[in-house]
Amino acid sequence: MEFHYPNGKKFIPSNRDKLPSKPKEKNFQYSNRGMTLEEDLNETNEYYLQSGIAVIHKKPTPVQIVQVDYPKRSAAVIREAYFKQASTTDYNGVYKGRYIDFEAKETRFKTSFPLKNFHKHQIKHMEAVLKHDGIAFVILRFSTLEDVYLLEGKYLLQFWRRMEKGGRKSIAISEIEQYGHMISLGFQPRIDYIKVIDKILNLK
Amino acid sequence: MEFHYPNGKKFIPSNRDKLPSKPKEKNFQYSNRGMTLEEDLNETNEYYLQSGIAVIHKKPTPVQIVQVDYPKRSAAVIREAYFKQASTTDYNGVYKGRYIDFEAKETRFKTSFPLKNFHKHQIKHMEAVLKHDGIAFVILRFSTLEDVYLLEGKYLLQFWRRMEKGGRKSIAISEIEQYGHMISLGFQPRIDYIKVIDKILNLK
Repeated sequence: MEFHYPNGKKFIPSNRDKLPSKPKEKNFQYSNRGMTLEEDLNETNEYYLQSGIAVIHKKPTPVQIVQVDYPKRSAAVIREAYFKQASTTDYNGVYKGRYIDFEAKETRFKTSFPLKNFHKHQIKHMEAVLKHDGIAFVILRFSTLEDVYLLEGKYLLQFWRRMEKGGRKSIAISEIEQYGHMISLGFQPRIDYIKVIDKILNLK
Repeated sequence: MEFHYPNGKKFIPSNRDKLPSKPKEKNFQYSNRGMTLEEDLNETNEYYLQSGIAVIHKKPTPVQIVQVDYPKRSAAVIREAYFKQASTTDYNGVYKGRYIDFEAKETRFKTSFPLKNFHKHQIKHMEAVLKHDGIAFVILRFSTLEDVYLLEGKYLLQFWRRMEKGGRKSIAISEIEQYGHMISLGFQPRIDYIKVIDKILNLK
């Protein structure tokens, strides 16, 4: 089990919202799923930064710090802290002066993407970003199929509202194919979502 | 120790670089000095959000998580974690579609603002943001005088380069008055920096 712990710890950021409510095995599963996509995106963002294409970073995991020790002559140690639910999406930054904002999620499902992967406040945040003319989207990965899609925020909002009105609690793969943009994985960058953003911006 | 190992390899080194060199009092003072300004800015950003003016958030404090406990039937507890140095600035978001990025710092000095309040990687980040046509600036507060200024990133970079070339390690108050914009404190919003941004955008 002690090997599970470090993984659990290491991957916590990608599924911090679920941690308190979910059993450990599930966290661990989610963490594994989240990690690959997160690593790919971090590499992609690093590539964008180094090649002067865009400046996009992942936000730190929000943590509620309760107790901090200050050992003499060494680093302050946080001794009690809890994972907080993020009030925004995980990634944001700037591309050609425009504000970029997105969330990345994975699922093991093959035929649909469950909307429970998102939280209401993240949806509200994307709504606000769109209202202020920011570029908001989600990157959805079907981990078993290895397929990655970019879905614009405006469409995610439509599917979310459909669920709120009592409709299906997920987005059908056919809908993602119709409204989203598939991103073929590359070497550098791994997930070239900026290419899709260019397409979207040119369409405007 | 078995909990230390996996993370220790990955995370501890980077912590060792920065944290031990900072004496405890300094950390403590800094956090105190930052607090008022941070609260004012959080209130301001909340006001901007609620009134539909802009969507700007403070990023969570970056923390390196080393050990997490998973008590049965209750929230995961972080038992060992360390403060990491931020690789970007603290605040970012969107205003009229534009990317907004800033750092807020306080000083108790009355005649100048010490540049040691900023880190090289924050300066590099602002440089990158400006290169990508983002709106980057710093909000400087002279806590004893209660004066708050907005200084555009391009000017901060000039003062930083002057220091790197062996020049003064601070920005004189006269220079901040000349190149910056004073922000008079209000009730709502407390620190209306968007008003200054409007001025700057219109000048373009």
